[in-house]
Amino acid sequence: MDLLSIDDLSDAQIARILDRALAIHPQVGRTVGGLEGRIVFNVFYENSTRTAMSFATAAHRLGAAAISLSVEHSSVKKGETLEDTARTLNAMRPDLLVLRHSENGAPAEVAAIMDAPVINAGDGTNEHPTQALLDAATLRQRLGRIEGLKVAIVGDIKHSRVARSNAKLLRRLGADVRLSGPPELLPAEVATVSVEDAIGGADVVMMLRVQRERQEQELGDAPGEYLRLYGLTPERLALADRHAVVLHPGPMNRGVEIADVVADDPARSLIALQVEMGVATRMACLEMLLA
Amino acid sequence: MDLLSIDDLSDAQIARILDRALAIHPQVGRTVGGLEGRIVFNVFYENSTRTAMSFATAAHRLGAAAISLSVEHSSVKKGETLEDTARTLNAMRPDLLVLRHSENGAPAEVAAIMDAPVINAGDGTNEHPTQALLDAATLRQRLGRIEGLKVAIVGDIKHSRVARSNAKLLRRLGADVRLSGPPELLPAEVATVSVEDAIGGADVVMMLRVQRERQEQELGDAPGEYLRLYGLTPERLALADRHAVVLHPGPMNRGVEIADVVADDPARSLIALQVEMGVATRMACLEMLLA
Amino acid sequence: MDLLSIDDLSDAQIARILDRALAIHPQVGRTVGGLEGRIVFNVFYENSTRTAMSFATAAHRLGAAAISLSVEHSSVKKGETLEDTARTLNAMRPDLLVLRHSENGAPAEVAAIMDAPVINAGDGTNEHPTQALLDAATLRQRLGRIEGLKVAIVGDIKHSRVARSNAKLLRRLGADVRLSGPPELLPAEVATVSVEDAIGGADVVMMLRVQRERQEQELGDAPGEYLRLYGLTPERLALADRHAVVLHPGPMNRGVEIADVVADDPARSLIALQVEMGVATRMACLEMLLA
Repeated sequence: MDLLSIDDLSDAQIARILDRALAIHPQVGRTVGGLEGRIVFNVFYENSTRTAMSFATAAHRLGAAAISLSVEHSSVKKGETLEDTARTLNAMRPDLLVLRHSENGAPAEVAAIMDAPVINAGDGTNEHPTQALLDAATLRQRLGRIEGLKVAIVGDIKHSRVARSNAKLLRRLGADVRLSGPPELLPAEVATVSVEDAIGGADVVMMLRVQRERQEQELGDAPGEYLRLYGLTPERLALADRHAVVLHPGPMNRGVEIADVVADDPARSLIALQVEMGVATRMACLEMLLA
Repeated sequence: MDLLSIDDLSDAQIARILDRALAIHPQVGRTVGGLEGRIVFNVFYENSTRTAMSFATAAHRLGAAAISLSVEHSSVKKGETLEDTARTLNAMRPDLLVLRHSENGAPAEVAAIMDAPVINAGDGTNEHPTQALLDAATLRQRLGRIEGLKVAIVGDIKHSRVARSNAKLLRRLGADVRLSGPPELLPAEVATVSVEDAIGGADVVMMLRVQRERQEQELGDAPGEYLRLYGLTPERLALADRHAVVLHPGPMNRGVEIADVVADDPARSLIALQVEMGVATRMACLEMLLA
Repeated sequence: MDLLSIDDLSDAQIARILDRALAIHPQVGRTVGGLEGRIVFNVFYENSTRTAMSFATAAHRLGAAAISLSVEHSSVKKGETLEDTARTLNAMRPDLLVLRHSENGAPAEVAAIMDAPVINAGDGTNEHPTQALLDAATLRQRLGRIEGLKVAIVGDIKHSRVARSNAKLLRRLGADVRLSGPPELLPAEVATVSVEDAIGGADVVMMLRVQRERQEQELGDAPGEYLRLYGLTPERLALADRHAVVLHPGPMNRGVEIADVVADDPARSLIALQVEMGVATRMACLEMLLA
């Protein structure tokens, strides 16, 4: 099986991944093995510190080897089609392929060719399923449950694969997910709700990264303008439940979508825990797909 | 010993590599081990998806570690001579060095300094011996023999290290090799033969990749012109033996040197098998050089 | 503990590292194991062939895995702060972090956040402690002792982390260290001594790499001018002790800071031995920090 979208997972599989991630988490800095001799191809058409290293770390912690390819070294630069690259990667017979790509659906296109399982590590504005799984694992670890949580996801909803995968997963797990952000960055099908209304009474506030290139025009010369209008300031966070926690997929633009004091609040910010849980969750996914 | 050129191999060594590659091939997706604790340096001064990943995969399938260096990270950018880089790499005491370089003879220059075996993974317009070995293994796997085969190699013969190594190897193995391509891209010593004559009655048609930069001037604004004049169309392939197979070292320029319908013909195209056999053949080479 | 500066090491720890490096050295091309299952993050914000590969080789020779990240793939390009990158790397729970950075103090800043040990693999113009340790190991291996040696370090003293770490370490080990170079490249606190006076009677001459960008202005159009004024020519080397040895951290600018005939003198030049000892010394450091 592949992990291209949250839709690929049954409820039982989601539960199994989250349970396993939580079980791995206390020993996430130790090598547990189990996948010795397996080879994971880590193919990134977009650069990413955290995701590429997180998958490589997860593979090594399971005893597998990770072979990484970044876009600079790719035949794509020589004009090869994605299908031909997929046929080539497939013919090398890796045990699993992790793929990040700037185009929606590219991992699905590749997975249709690969015999080995494919994990979508983020495709364009479509999905990033392991991010949603690690976010859910983080909430389970800290809050003990997902069901019934009020979750505000705030930012560029229209273009965010993180928002899309999280909305799917958290709703399936019984959360009340509210999407908000700058009006021009909300998809047409989302009912307009102000950031304040989305955050009001929330148990979880998930801030999305501002894509600077995208927002530059509207932000103009006022760097603090986004924070003032849509960012997570202490004032806005005060609207949430008094025990509310804060998530961010990273890397953060401090002073843009999130204020320093919120990002660094030890009682509320789960941002480092998300990264820890990321390794544990990807270990759980690799185990499930390769067992 | 080093593997810099097909000329470095005795007939017995060639037979041993091909036999072993064919024996490994059915389990090319499995880790067989045997070289645990060995370190292979994978140094590429030219980018290459398939060759760099193929060697890294081969090393890991044998239990060895591969440490990769691409040119961007190289001291060459700081003006170090190739000899000094070779002395530095040698002093780190890897068990084997795989080297790709844009200059003819660079791997030989490095091998003269290295104590460990060196494999030439392609040097300029000179040689690419493991490509020829994997092509021979592919033909042995599919056709059962090399001896007596009529093989047409078509394209930029003058600048192709793939053509040079293949012509040497396949002739030593008893094939009748015919070289053809655009007249200005044939070396002076090659008797001019039309593409149609080269392909006529052939058992194997090996198409070479068009180097777009090189052909751009003559192709001008007509992208289909190369295909019409020299490419492998179904019409040209019909001139070959009715059981003829098609090889291409990749990455392919579809619609330039090869038509889609030929590249994708499941009965004729061995292009994916070449990549599979590439891992198996490189495993066989690593085993031979490190045993 | 971290290894950010020579000052971090006690005399006993220095002795332990050097003893162990000398013990490892005869078998530096063999995998000795001992750190199986450990993961070393190799994060380089500046490119480096020798240092990055040396640490990766050292890790693999000890049975550990090395996961490398070069600056091109870094979130820094996305505007993340160094502290946030450190928090992210820490949360992935590597066993050790090797960090090279262009800014003085960056590894210390990161180490303050990381739970795992951090090795400074060179920060700006500050320190490069493993280079100093490998240089000391090289001298111990060849000359049997450090105490009492007259060591001339020649070049851009003001901006050289190699010089700074070496001066600290070699003086602690009892050497008489003399610093010299172009007057404008000496720090204010260093008493001006001519290159000839520094080299006169020296047991060891350590030449520093000329940073071409930095020297370009003053060297102008005369490429041999630096060699004539400050470089290690046979004439200058003749001023040293008749058994004097030559060190260079590499990569060398031949004909600039060092003449070919000196760099290649088999009786005097220890430049390749430094690289060999570099792997052994880094193995000793990894063992000490991870044992």
